[in-house]
Amino acid sequence: MALIGAFKRLLGDTAVLTREQDLAGITEDWRGRFRAPALCAVLPANTEQVASIVRLCVENGTPVLPQGGNTSLCGGATPSELSKPPVIILLTRMRRIRSIDPVNNTMVVDAGCVLATIQETAAAADRLYPVSLGAEGSCQIGGNIATNAGGTGVLRYGNTRDNVLGLEVVLPDGSIWDGLSALRKNNTGYDLKHLFIGSEGTLGIITGAVLKLHPLPKAEAVAWLAVDDPQRALDMLGLFQAACSSRLSAFELMNARQIELVLEKVPGRRCPVERIDTWHVLVELSDTGNAEQLAATMQAVLERALEDGVISDGVVAASEAQRKAMWLVRHSVSEANKKAGVGLTSDTAVPVSAVPSFIEGAMAAVHAIVPDLPFVIVGHMGDGNIHLIPFFTFAEWDALGDRDAVAQRIRRAMNDVASSLRGTFSAEHGVGRTLTGEMSRYKPPVELTLMRAVKQAFDPKDLFNPGRVLPSPSIATSHRGD
Amino acid sequence: MALIGAFKRLLGDTAVLTREQDLAGITEDWRGRFRAPALCAVLPANTEQVASIVRLCVENGTPVLPQGGNTSLCGGATPSELSKPPVIILLTRMRRIRSIDPVNNTMVVDAGCVLATIQETAAAADRLYPVSLGAEGSCQIGGNIATNAGGTGVLRYGNTRDNVLGLEVVLPDGSIWDGLSALRKNNTGYDLKHLFIGSEGTLGIITGAVLKLHPLPKAEAVAWLAVDDPQRALDMLGLFQAACSSRLSAFELMNARQIELVLEKVPGRRCPVERIDTWHVLVELSDTGNAEQLAATMQAVLERALEDGVISDGVVAASEAQRKAMWLVRHSVSEANKKAGVGLTSDTAVPVSAVPSFIEGAMAAVHAIVPDLPFVIVGHMGDGNIHLIPFFTFAEWDALGDRDAVAQRIRRAMNDVASSLRGTFSAEHGVGRTLTGEMSRYKPPVELTLMRAVKQAFDPKDLFNPGRVLPSPSIATSHRGD
Repeated sequence: MALIGAFKRLLGDTAVLTREQDLAGITEDWRGRFRAPALCAVLPANTEQVASIVRLCVENGTPVLPQGGNTSLCGGATPSELSKPPVIILLTRMRRIRSIDPVNNTMVVDAGCVLATIQETAAAADRLYPVSLGAEGSCQIGGNIATNAGGTGVLRYGNTRDNVLGLEVVLPDGSIWDGLSALRKNNTGYDLKHLFIGSEGTLGIITGAVLKLHPLPKAEAVAWLAVDDPQRALDMLGLFQAACSSRLSAFELMNARQIELVLEKVPGRRCPVERIDTWHVLVELSDTGNAEQLAATMQAVLERALEDGVISDGVVAASEAQRKAMWLVRHSVSEANKKAGVGLTSDTAVPVSAVPSFIEGAMAAVHAIVPDLPFVIVGHMGDGNIHLIPFFTFAEWDALGDRDAVAQRIRRAMNDVASSLRGTFSAEHGVGRTLTGEMSRYKPPVELTLMRAVKQAFDPKDLFNPGRVLPSPSIATSHRGD
Repeated sequence: MALIGAFKRLLGDTAVLTREQDLAGITEDWRGRFRAPALCAVLPANTEQVASIVRLCVENGTPVLPQGGNTSLCGGATPSELSKPPVIILLTRMRRIRSIDPVNNTMVVDAGCVLATIQETAAAADRLYPVSLGAEGSCQIGGNIATNAGGTGVLRYGNTRDNVLGLEVVLPDGSIWDGLSALRKNNTGYDLKHLFIGSEGTLGIITGAVLKLHPLPKAEAVAWLAVDDPQRALDMLGLFQAACSSRLSAFELMNARQIELVLEKVPGRRCPVERIDTWHVLVELSDTGNAEQLAATMQAVLERALEDGVISDGVVAASEAQRKAMWLVRHSVSEANKKAGVGLTSDTAVPVSAVPSFIEGAMAAVHAIVPDLPFVIVGHMGDGNIHLIPFFTFAEWDALGDRDAVAQRIRRAMNDVASSLRGTFSAEHGVGRTLTGEMSRYKPPVELTLMRAVKQAFDPKDLFNPGRVLPSPSIATSHRGD
């Protein structure tokens, strides 16, 4: 085909993948849920090559799909069977740390850099790049930015959005926007950077970025708390914020069922507190200052909370090994849940103050569909981001009649409760292809109209990751307008 | 006129201002530099009325100009003689604190709330709204958001942009976008909020906002340092960041001439250190923790810096009165400069690491135009935001031949040096009407094209604050493309 020939002349034969076996891991998402054909995959070595590829695709009317580490949880980075087979642009070869400026606390990177490489490069310069998430060993920064990745550092450092100062983007007309600004203050027109962040490849292909770095914390204090209910966890969060301000770097909530599953399913894990039948909180403080002061602050907050009855138990990690052991329990959650059964995870965020109402309301709504269904609950409570997981054993799940319909009803019930509290159905995973129906249901029509106007202005031919993020206008109906 | 009649029917007679004497303070900016006629000024009481006003204007082809506290430094909030006389929408009557949620750390406000009222309301709830600037007693939050206001809290808390979670906006078609989200995490499509922030009324009229609150700091430590040059000030900034992380809340640089002017022109000010012929730094730490620890940290950093020769002198404020006296010197800068002569202030930001190069390079470039011209220098060094002020006595200024041309050449010379260091000509003041020429000169054509596409998509009739932010395409030329 002419387009493939043109790519080979541009990039060399080895940088254009067309064979079934070479495309297998690229045209399917990592969980094996979505798979559709691509015309080919191409491996540009630099931004100019990306721009040339885009120009060839646009001339040809062929869709363009950028792919980073292919770690999307909602089918955002693999082809859709709803559009013509796209050209997949892999950023893998573009993995240069372009420069680092420890005085300005910034790093300029290619979009294909793996997140862990960026974290390590920052640490080697005595700085912190604070975004951290499960896929960090393979996900790429371009994908992180295109999806505004969250993770465990959000409470203190914000989402990926808050840690990007500038971008380089190849636009749908094949031109290159050099927005690689490393400034903290710049009030000169519309902030285009924020439009591309979180746009999931539908407005342009991010090829480079200026990242914000932070002082590397030198001290940490970690504690494990037992609380009677989510409201008391919330009270505890308030005590920590008042006493520790931005030293509070994690505040993770888990229910008893979640801890039980970890202890049952993952060898070597143990619960840091004696009673398991409570709610659990992992709290972390971190600071550039000295460790003794930090430990003393942690101790003082916990003593007061115990006295006041806010917590029923609390253990401060006395060593690095104990800190690691506590975090291991939290990090074993996915493994345990996967082994234990089928969970219909929500990716809810609500105002932090509404977390107890959300948990109570969403559980009741789900129980109206499947009475007495157990819930596993884990979340970044400090951000109001709760993964509420109606949980089936494998046997229960297999015994269900129409599983897809049940799953759909349950998810909708949880999202409706979140929406009634002005929460969101996608706190950190993005929209991709799986949640465009939710966009129709929960977004006000005015907002969808504005988003479509932006898409039309940037990508009038609808060739950039078509069918993602925005629902097709014909099927748009508003929940709020009901 | 029919439009005015329609406004009176909608709002009542007293909410429509048409008389010369009522419009005088509205059609002219507060410094008396810009003045042009308006059709009228209207005072809506709520968001629905703003939307009705916009619909009437659009039907009529009449431009719409929102005005907050009228404190713009670049003519952004007053009519332009280049367009038809606009309808000025005053948000003054919309000044309700709609709600405050101390647990979620958010506050929902009408756009017409005065910044100081918001700060006080937050403080009464034991919270901090951290944006603070000279005009805070009269500027309105809607204007702060529309211009992404900066100020003295940026080093720790970011610009206004970083402290807004959601917006309510009346769009150029008269519809209302309810984007009043109070969430920390929400990855559901394009982030429209960030488009409106900093758009200076050209894309929509902000009528309400959800603001982010922070724990109220309970302890402060302030010191005054003498350093030999800007590079040593930068070294000092690095020491504070490593030792204090986000406890560092201000790092303000001033040169000797600036201190001399304050001491000469403002009664009752005294220099905290003995030697005046150095560069001066005001540094502030703040924290929710105890004051003794904070003072000890400050002391430790300064002792090490003195030993290592990074600073030549340093004084820690020993009392609240001394802290205030130090800040008074910094806050007397504008008064002193106004009394002493004519300064051609730049609003430069460069990467923090480039501040010494910028100061040196820009001074040399100006001296090539006016040899030996003195400079007053004051800036938020921690943000890379430097106000470099080539300074004329009144007599020198009056003796100049073509003052406008000289001012223009001098500003251009400074902005060219900033641009060569990838800096900006407007760090915090915005573009308004005075800097659209700089937009043409310094912005890459690709970026201007994208901004115009956004403007066209949102306001196809070009009725919202026309002629601001974006230069007219016909006169666009690119400096970088030269």
